[in-house]
Amino acid sequence: MSRWALGIDLGGTAIKAAVVCEKRGILADRRFLTDTASGPAGIVAQLATIIADLYRDASRTNEPDNFAGAGLGAPGAVDTVNGVLSYPPNLPGWSIFPLRDELRNCMEQQQGLSIPVSIDNDANAAAFGEAVYGAGREFRDFLMVTLGTGVGGGIVLDRKLYRGAHGTAGELGFMILDFEGPSLHAGIRGTLESLIGKKAIVACASRMIEASQSGSTSSHLCGHDYTKLSPRHLEQAAIAGDEVSLALWHRVGSILGVGLANVAVLMDIRKFVIGGGISGAGNLIFVPAFEQLRRSMLPSMHEGLEIVPAQLGNKAGMYGAAALCFG
Amino acid sequence: MSRWALGIDLGGTAIKAAVVCEKRGILADRRFLTDTASGPAGIVAQLATIIADLYRDASRTNEPDNFAGAGLGAPGAVDTVNGVLSYPPNLPGWSIFPLRDELRNCMEQQQGLSIPVSIDNDANAAAFGEAVYGAGREFRDFLMVTLGTGVGGGIVLDRKLYRGAHGTAGELGFMILDFEGPSLHAGIRGTLESLIGKKAIVACASRMIEASQSGSTSSHLCGHDYTKLSPRHLEQAAIAGDEVSLALWHRVGSILGVGLANVAVLMDIRKFVIGGGISGAGNLIFVPAFEQLRRSMLPSMHEGLEIVPAQLGNKAGMYGAAALCFG
Repeated sequence: MSRWALGIDLGGTAIKAAVVCEKRGILADRRFLTDTASGPAGIVAQLATIIADLYRDASRTNEPDNFAGAGLGAPGAVDTVNGVLSYPPNLPGWSIFPLRDELRNCMEQQQGLSIPVSIDNDANAAAFGEAVYGAGREFRDFLMVTLGTGVGGGIVLDRKLYRGAHGTAGELGFMILDFEGPSLHAGIRGTLESLIGKKAIVACASRMIEASQSGSTSSHLCGHDYTKLSPRHLEQAAIAGDEVSLALWHRVGSILGVGLANVAVLMDIRKFVIGGGISGAGNLIFVPAFEQLRRSMLPSMHEGLEIVPAQLGNKAGMYGAAALCFG
Repeated sequence: MSRWALGIDLGGTAIKAAVVCEKRGILADRRFLTDTASGPAGIVAQLATIIADLYRDASRTNEPDNFAGAGLGAPGAVDTVNGVLSYPPNLPGWSIFPLRDELRNCMEQQQGLSIPVSIDNDANAAAFGEAVYGAGREFRDFLMVTLGTGVGGGIVLDRKLYRGAHGTAGELGFMILDFEGPSLHAGIRGTLESLIGKKAIVACASRMIEASQSGSTSSHLCGHDYTKLSPRHLEQAAIAGDEVSLALWHRVGSILGVGLANVAVLMDIRKFVIGGGISGAGNLIFVPAFEQLRRSMLPSMHEGLEIVPAQLGNKAGMYGAAALCFG
């Protein structure tokens, strides 16, 4: 019998939870809306209930002796040794919180359940999920990039997560690519997230469509309500040949390529796994990103450069969280 | 009796070589002009002679049984496992060259001397020198930045060099901070070296002095021959209160701070050791760099941030090269 674990992905909107078999992958998964209203205590109670229910259900068909524990990916910086979460960006009212121990206590007291808990940053969990079960399996070292509302990163070196001394490594969205630029993210100028986060993509599209009305390029999207534009619209428009949308994705990919080049020259990482909702635009992003990545590095460093799509979609976090328990 | 080694710093202009005692540091050092005219074979022969002479001299007062070997820091990417040097930027006629084995062979055949040789990248050697003998001794993880003609970097994690899979990690000068900017370095736009390498500093100073003639700031340097400006002049002028020079160093420091912030958010490194000739400007650079570093990161990541000057000056490479042998 192979080992099994629970993998939990704690997000500001939803909690995703799965039963993961070490060999066969996800056996069952569920999704819940995050109870952000009651602060840390409310979420801890919610997590305890979810974990206990899932554990009890799964224990009927999986040998409890082979249970490896519950793994949790959470937003914010995580001290994985002490199980402490700091400043999760999407969870109001949290600052520094001993999530692992509080969760274990709550499960013991409210659910009568004593199980090992591992926690890590959500982007790290997603990267580790891809490393063990997804597109990163063939790579010893890689950077996992999550393109979505934010731009996240997780670093895998020698098949292990690279977390840094404070657990904040891989904060790719804060990398500055245009230090005198106009775009802002958390008050910081020209970060990758300020340039190609979801908001930035929509804002840039609106500007490009406006400009196209007096310029040489044309767009099917002229006259649309810009406030309702979504990356998905822009993806469909580009596939339909819309010039402005094509140019937009080219720009997004190129900027991503600059960011990847910075990681490549600094860390000597040459494999990149790209996931997150925005990465659904696929080659619209990947092709210009790869071109720009190469253009941004000396030819002597081109060997082995590769950009590949993530394989686990929005299940990467659950996979990786569970994999923390098998580690 | 403590161990001793030879530490060699191979540069495009000079070869610096030292006898280094593991406990007491440099016992003697010498400097030679690099014989670049005869290509790799010429330099290998020159290195073999230098090493053999130094070894024989030092063997009179140091116990040969305690000799740990010769370490060599070289420009370009170094495969430390196989001892192969790739594309050293300042050595014309080299591409990919098995420097370690060629050097060992040459020493055996021409000097009758068989000694262990370790090689590494020169920026890595300088970082390791500071880690073992200099400003990095108190830091577990740090980035060593060398500000000079170029901008170099070496990364120490857990008190060991972080080299990356291909030996090219820490190429800080190629980090892109202004992806649409006008400045170029090896054809790449807006790299740190294109912004604050020696050439860029002098060019920027010339532009600022010109602009000051029609503007509100004033400069003692107006009327100077800009082609003869050096960082040293600009440092002295700033110390004397020259407004343009002060603004220049503020800009250099700020841009460096952006680069350090990128390393901090990506790798969770919060200690920075700054060396190289340009770093002689000291607090003219360090103060704005530290301000910008903090401004470029979330307050939750400010803990432990520190910028300190290197302590070993132009001997860091020799120290680190020797330390490779003690490792």
